[in-house]
Amino acid sequence: MPPLHICSLILCSISAVFSSPVGRDSVCGYKSCPATKPSMLNVHLVPHTHDDVGWLKTVDQYYYGDRNYIQHAGVQYILDSVVDQLQKDPARRFIYVEIAFFYRWWKQQDQKTRRIVTQLVNEGRLEFINGGWCMSDEATTHYSAVIDQMSLGLRFLNDTFGECGRPRVAWHIDPFGHAREHASIFAQMGYDGFFFGRLDYQDKGRRMRTKEMEMVWRASESLKPPVANLFTGVLPNGYNPPAGFCWDQSCDDAPIRDDPDLEDYNVDVMVQNFVSTANSQATYYKTNHIIMTMGSDFQYENANLWYKNMDKLIKYVNALQANGSKVNVLYSTPSCYLQELNLANLTWPQKTDDFFPYADDAHDFWTGYFTSRPALKLYERLSNSLLQTCTQLEVLGGPKSRSGPFGEGDSDTMKRAMGVAQHHDAVSGTEKQHVAYDYAKRLARGWAHCEVLIRNSLAVLTGSEAPRVMCENLNISVCPLTESSHKFSMNVYNPLARAVSWPVRLPVNGSQYSVTDANGKAVDSQVVPLTKSTQEVRRNRGYAKGELVFQVKAPPLGYTTYIISLLQDGPPEDKIVHRAPPSIQNKFLKVTFDDNTGLLKTLTNLETQQTIQLSQNFYWYNASAGNNYESNQPSGAYIFRPNSSTPFIVNKTAQIEVVTVSGVVQEVTQWFSPWVSQVVRLYEGRRELELEWTVGPVPIKDGLGKEVITRLDTDIQSSGYFYTDSNGREVLERRKDYRPTWDLKQSEPIAGNYYPINSRAFIKASDDKRQLTVVTDRSQGVGSIYNGSLEIMLHRRLLYDDVRGVGEPLSEPGEFNDGLVVRGRLLLTLTPPDQAADTHRPLAQGMVLQPLLSFQDGTPSTNSKLEFSGLQAALPPAVHMLTLSQWDKDSILIRLEHQYEAKESKTYSQPVTVNLQKLFSTFKVLGASEMSLGANQWKKDMTRLSWNNEMNVKPVPVSDKDPSPWEVTLNPMEIRTFLLQVQQ
Amino acid sequence: MPPLHICSLILCSISAVFSSPVGRDSVCGYKSCPATKPSMLNVHLVPHTHDDVGWLKTVDQYYYGDRNYIQHAGVQYILDSVVDQLQKDPARRFIYVEIAFFYRWWKQQDQKTRRIVTQLVNEGRLEFINGGWCMSDEATTHYSAVIDQMSLGLRFLNDTFGECGRPRVAWHIDPFGHAREHASIFAQMGYDGFFFGRLDYQDKGRRMRTKEMEMVWRASESLKPPVANLFTGVLPNGYNPPAGFCWDQSCDDAPIRDDPDLEDYNVDVMVQNFVSTANSQATYYKTNHIIMTMGSDFQYENANLWYKNMDKLIKYVNALQANGSKVNVLYSTPSCYLQELNLANLTWPQKTDDFFPYADDAHDFWTGYFTSRPALKLYERLSNSLLQTCTQLEVLGGPKSRSGPFGEGDSDTMKRAMGVAQHHDAVSGTEKQHVAYDYAKRLARGWAHCEVLIRNSLAVLTGSEAPRVMCENLNISVCPLTESSHKFSMNVYNPLARAVSWPVRLPVNGSQYSVTDANGKAVDSQVVPLTKSTQEVRRNRGYAKGELVFQVKAPPLGYTTYIISLLQDGPPEDKIVHRAPPSIQNKFLKVTFDDNTGLLKTLTNLETQQTIQLSQNFYWYNASAGNNYESNQPSGAYIFRPNSSTPFIVNKTAQIEVVTVSGVVQEVTQWFSPWVSQVVRLYEGRRELELEWTVGPVPIKDGLGKEVITRLDTDIQSSGYFYTDSNGREVLERRKDYRPTWDLKQSEPIAGNYYPINSRAFIKASDDKRQLTVVTDRSQGVGSIYNGSLEIMLHRRLLYDDVRGVGEPLSEPGEFNDGLVVRGRLLLTLTPPDQAADTHRPLAQGMVLQPLLSFQDGTPSTNSKLEFSGLQAALPPAVHMLTLSQWDKDSILIRLEHQYEAKESKTYSQPVTVNLQKLFSTFKVLGASEMSLGANQWKKDMTRLSWNNEMNVKPVPVSDKDPSPWEVTLNPMEIRTFLLQVQQ
Repeated sequence: MPPLHICSLILCSISAVFSSPVGRDSVCGYKSCPATKPSMLNVHLVPHTHDDVGWLKTVDQYYYGDRNYIQHAGVQYILDSVVDQLQKDPARRFIYVEIAFFYRWWKQQDQKTRRIVTQLVNEGRLEFINGGWCMSDEATTHYSAVIDQMSLGLRFLNDTFGECGRPRVAWHIDPFGHAREHASIFAQMGYDGFFFGRLDYQDKGRRMRTKEMEMVWRASESLKPPVANLFTGVLPNGYNPPAGFCWDQSCDDAPIRDDPDLEDYNVDVMVQNFVSTANSQATYYKTNHIIMTMGSDFQYENANLWYKNMDKLIKYVNALQANGSKVNVLYSTPSCYLQELNLANLTWPQKTDDFFPYADDAHDFWTGYFTSRPALKLYERLSNSLLQTCTQLEVLGGPKSRSGPFGEGDSDTMKRAMGVAQHHDAVSGTEKQHVAYDYAKRLARGWAHCEVLIRNSLAVLTGSEAPRVMCENLNISVCPLTESSHKFSMNVYNPLARAVSWPVRLPVNGSQYSVTDANGKAVDSQVVPLTKSTQEVRRNRGYAKGELVFQVKAPPLGYTTYIISLLQDGPPEDKIVHRAPPSIQNKFLKVTFDDNTGLLKTLTNLETQQTIQLSQNFYWYNASAGNNYESNQPSGAYIFRPNSSTPFIVNKTAQIEVVTVSGVVQEVTQWFSPWVSQVVRLYEGRRELELEWTVGPVPIKDGLGKEVITRLDTDIQSSGYFYTDSNGREVLERRKDYRPTWDLKQSEPIAGNYYPINSRAFIKASDDKRQLTVVTDRSQGVGSIYNGSLEIMLHRRLLYDDVRGVGEPLSEPGEFNDGLVVRGRLLLTLTPPDQAADTHRPLAQGMVLQPLLSFQDGTPSTNSKLEFSGLQAALPPAVHMLTLSQWDKDSILIRLEHQYEAKESKTYSQPVTVNLQKLFSTFKVLGASEMSLGANQWKKDMTRLSWNNEMNVKPVPVSDKDPSPWEVTLNPMEIRTFLLQVQQ
Repeated sequence: MPPLHICSLILCSISAVFSSPVGRDSVCGYKSCPATKPSMLNVHLVPHTHDDVGWLKTVDQYYYGDRNYIQHAGVQYILDSVVDQLQKDPARRFIYVEIAFFYRWWKQQDQKTRRIVTQLVNEGRLEFINGGWCMSDEATTHYSAVIDQMSLGLRFLNDTFGECGRPRVAWHIDPFGHAREHASIFAQMGYDGFFFGRLDYQDKGRRMRTKEMEMVWRASESLKPPVANLFTGVLPNGYNPPAGFCWDQSCDDAPIRDDPDLEDYNVDVMVQNFVSTANSQATYYKTNHIIMTMGSDFQYENANLWYKNMDKLIKYVNALQANGSKVNVLYSTPSCYLQELNLANLTWPQKTDDFFPYADDAHDFWTGYFTSRPALKLYERLSNSLLQTCTQLEVLGGPKSRSGPFGEGDSDTMKRAMGVAQHHDAVSGTEKQHVAYDYAKRLARGWAHCEVLIRNSLAVLTGSEAPRVMCENLNISVCPLTESSHKFSMNVYNPLARAVSWPVRLPVNGSQYSVTDANGKAVDSQVVPLTKSTQEVRRNRGYAKGELVFQVKAPPLGYTTYIISLLQDGPPEDKIVHRAPPSIQNKFLKVTFDDNTGLLKTLTNLETQQTIQLSQNFYWYNASAGNNYESNQPSGAYIFRPNSSTPFIVNKTAQIEVVTVSGVVQEVTQWFSPWVSQVVRLYEGRRELELEWTVGPVPIKDGLGKEVITRLDTDIQSSGYFYTDSNGREVLERRKDYRPTWDLKQSEPIAGNYYPINSRAFIKASDDKRQLTVVTDRSQGVGSIYNGSLEIMLHRRLLYDDVRGVGEPLSEPGEFNDGLVVRGRLLLTLTPPDQAADTHRPLAQGMVLQPLLSFQDGTPSTNSKLEFSGLQAALPPAVHMLTLSQWDKDSILIRLEHQYEAKESKTYSQPVTVNLQKLFSTFKVLGASEMSLGANQWKKDMTRLSWNNEMNVKPVPVSDKDPSPWEVTLNPMEIRTFLLQVQQ
């Protein structure tokens, strides 16, 4: 796809971004690779460190090397040490991965050190690999945040080092399973290859036997190959060195003792062991090149230990060549190894599914973390929503957004906090408790900085500098302003590029309110009583007696304003009914309840006249304590291992607490136990049934760890098949007790059938045209253990550590130290399969980018602008504006995304064209230039290595033409990234 | 004392030795010290590492960083890292101490690194401190070996770095108590000051209160001040950094977090803590300078951690000066700190006793290691004897000694092995078992190298290249040659500078032999049966049935030869008597036995007609298991803590096994238990009673650790006073439950009264003129708990670790894994006090430098030279030739020692003069130049800092004149060191 060359001006101005200190004699990239020996087995030693962006310690504790009593790790020293050691020998190589750390370090270096490092980078001696802010989790992250965090790191590298700083290889050596969408993203970011360390032990065993450790991953069913093809390699030893060759200060392997005058000269035995290790490893791989990862967690704090011994290893192993040895060892990098594989010009196996779930042994399925720390998982997701709003309003509000009437605001703090939160021990929920708090604190600080920016921006856009508050605790019905004010206005900012309607619930103390929209038109509203669980959760933080419920409509990428006035004081009318009604319904859906149990009974789509039997309840698996005869593996932050495949039911019947039936909302509150309740809710005019669950504090006084699920049981004949999204984008088919690429021996009937979802899961039947889709508000684990059933894990509270390093049982204390209460929503839709995406795509997108509410007391001033859209018009329904972000003074970065898969929607799975000049209402687009997905390369310069694979021996380059330079066409699932030169 | 300037030639040739790469602009030594601020409290940060020359790992394991699972420590990396870090900032300083390690490292460096290091040394940025091969133990070492090991390290430094490599400060930060003789040696080696870390906790408390942490140690009662005066400082925190400021990779203290953008900015609190720590420390010291030891065991493997944080500390603490702070922090060295103390020109307190025993708490007396590993302690002592013989014969035999008919031999291997063995966790017996084996192995390799040299040298001197064997197992009566040969010759080399007579015992199978001396004269001999314990100990390694006993006489620094022929085959006559005789006696001594108990009863000096009641028996203290209410301290390798002050008696009576009464020897074998026996022995013509004890395997099946003593109970009214030597030289008075410098609160009535002896102990009574002296064959712990009593700890076998790091109970397995058997000798003399030294000085010197026996089968060839002396004449009785060693091709190093104290001998405590040109018989002395005791400085250049102390405000320099340039006068206890240019 040829890039746009509209405006020489913009290229000139933007090129400054890419004008980095690459010397004329820089030989970075593949050119800087060491020579290898074609007739020998070439062993690529890759010195590396794996620096978790938080895990047992916080990211800053890791950076500084603080609290080493928890774990000895100090990244500042690693970088100091490596830079010193690299200077000692031009043959030495090092790769660095996590830019969250590198950025901290770089900031603190003097000019001299920066010059040295730049030269090392320019000579390919220090190479950045992966290069995102962190090494993201793959199971529990949303693609939007993943792209952002990658771009954040890549931009730093590009700004700092230019082309020589651009990573060629994606490197996810630690994440616990691998998502296809991640591979697709990497491919679109221009990576030539991808290496990882963890995969199912059965899968690995087979791949070793069949030499399929390296493959081409075809990572999208929608994008035309090779756009989403990614060469993918499984590393031989996870990411560790081979046994006996770990020379880090944290290791105890014998150093090479090569002074014959001292005791224990061991050169011969070390060389012999190494040669034998190399030859053995070579039997699992196809070429005469193999890679050895010489490093591990937080290693190289004293790089001399590593390099000194590797220098000797290389010297003595290669010395044997004079006697006929055919093993050649060299310092190398993943890129240089990859280049050799590419030059081998082989045909590689193909992979089309993903690498979930990950098990490292028969009873050790890493499927617990799909749900671990559900509150953090939601907070991360809401933070992403706020960040997108923040960057949009930074663009729309102009420079005053950052420095305006409410002070200094920025989106960078949140970008970095979100970058850190994507880490594979962050949003994954597998960090220590104090570290989880730190992630949340960083996000909260990001919120504070963004909120200043947003208030400034809205002041610009509305013309009103009156105080404006955000209410971050609406989920527990706490908002001092709405609770006390008799008249206030509410600004609803919608970050989506299409108009949305959205139900709003405000904590209030009146029983009747007048709500009018920006045009002064009255809006239906209803005050409903607070549920018991809400009162319990909020405790003394608020005193609202009810919630004012109404639906808002907000324009694309813009806001509107509602005026709310108290009409009648006092608590909401008490019309509590303790029996479920036979049914509730709106224009689109009808739900019936079982009169005996109070549970859901059926769900009907009134438009399509489809009905399913739908029973829903809450259960808990008794977490294994690790004391049974099959295995001593307990459930923990990572691992899900129920003690029995049959979960305990929380309650066979639901007590009905409150029933509200109004023209705005109909809701039935079900009470299952002191720690499980739910509101079944149908808003007027909406096509989804909302199940708002509240779980916690999970009791543990019985000595039993609990993994709480809700299960939806239907009469859909799903026959073991179900579907889950990958990082919130494309959907993969799952099948019980089955893996597409090997003959599974199932050893954990529940945990081995769990998969991550980020935004949705569904079941359908090929023969009966009914699809039940569940859209979630955060990442969770899901399984379909029974025919027609979907179960979603909501919360976990455990008593044992699962021996994967975190060293704590996952038992979140919550605010009052009696266990964390978590609340969330499942949105259910019932549709024919071929119409499902038309509903669940926008529904899920709306869940990801939620309207931002802000409040001003009193009546808005007359000259304030009550409604605004940043767009000239809503984007077409298939198009999602994934990114809108200020790049520099005169340019902005946008990403336009086709949000449908190639075949999922009759209506929308079509190419769609957008005119870049006609997008925005507040500024003129003077030029546009397309970039790689990571925004660190012009699209035109993006030339990836090509690989033969089983399916397409020679992939054809994509060559769709855009209709005109300004009109860009998006194909299903395509994301296009543009740098726009703009004028306010 | 002005040095000799006899020969300009020698100075020219020797000066090459000292011509080291000191650049013209070198500013090492005191000139390189950093500026301080007179009006402030100057805090001298001293970056240092303490590198044990073996302890939990062997010296080579420590060097390489092998077996880090035992202890993380790798000296090669420490030096790599420090050299790197020193280059980064000229303000940074480091000191290095243990040359055994530095030597290994230096050998492996390339020219570039060597140049860099030399420059760092020349600029005073890397400073050598102490500079011996190791940091010697002070309780269990003999001065001869200490001087040798110091000289070995100092010579390496001088050869490598010249004057800038010369240490100014002695630094014994870890040894467990401090010997006065060590201080005297350091003073005579030219050190300006001495710092240490460990002293009795009561002593330290008092010194802190009275600001007596720094003092002038008057380390000799014989040498004229200030020759043996040594400025001595007690370090504030042992050798560790103050709490909270340890930034090594092995520490967990918080780093300085000075980036306000990151979490947990802590500069203010760190600075505050440091200033308060410094001010608090200053209250214990006299000047406005204080020292902080920034380092500890094997620290600085990653020096960046230390320096980076100290850089920040210095920056931020000194920044406060702008706001009136009076604390000034700087990188410094012990020398620079010492220089400031010297400039302060104060009068310092004086110390005349020593720092034994060391207790770090009320029940934690480090008096066990005085005896720990008694077999290693003896082997070290015998190795010293062999080394002196070896270096003598290297000189006397000339160049062929190193490369001769028996191959390549050297004394360097033994010098280095002995250097390592002096370490404070080597001969001290406080290392792990596998490390003890390593020390022994190194010594054994030293023996092997020396034995080749000795065979070569004796081949030169005797003219016979016939095979010659040494029998190293004579102590267990094993020597294949003497056991089987019908005729053989025995060469007796005497390393003392006076003729000696010596009883020899050879394992044989005949019952009668003819023994003739070098003149063909018959020598009285006797075959005595082997004791049962000897048979048990040797097991199947030998098959001798008896021992041939006779006395030999050997010339000074030379050998003689005996011819032994079998006269009658068969076992020795069986004349076993199972009853002790009423007495045994020779010309000088008479011993009586108690007829009921079989124990000794009286000892009589027949010359002086003095008799004492003397009862002797064996006891064991039950070692504390650490489980009593007073303290949980168990006995261990370091610590002696009996469970009760009353020891268990092994047996109230001794069974008499064998009694031999002949003209050669009279001996009574006492059997106390299966694991304790003794031979009471009186050789004809000797003034000492020999008690040859055999202890072990110490039984532990009863679950009780045992500390075995022998106790000599007499009727001497010693009143709690007794006397022990210091490192084998000067004698100190001890007194029960008393310390000369503070008011002792005795908390361990036994362990708190133990002191180390290296060669002798005695009790005497001022009123009755009887002195019982015990000369020992190795270092041991001794106490006088009862009036008239001396007890000597012989062996220890324990069941618990004493929690001082070694991590093993001291339970030596011995050769057959059932517990080590140890054999040793005590030599008892009874004399008037004023004649005692005349006997015990030569007796102890003979124990230290024993004749070396070597054997040739058959009859010596007729042209072989049967007798030889390297001296023109024996040295005067007061003079000991401490060192005779080849220095380089044309020069030799000698040390002449006056071996009497100033007042101990009426006959010998006088100045004595020796003519250097008339010493040697085999070469001509062309020139002589006096050196410091450490042989790293011309005596004339030795100008030490002078210190005022309480006794002599201004010490007068010693200015005794030698009679002539060649004739040198030795005053009591003086050692003089000369480099002689010689011609063979």
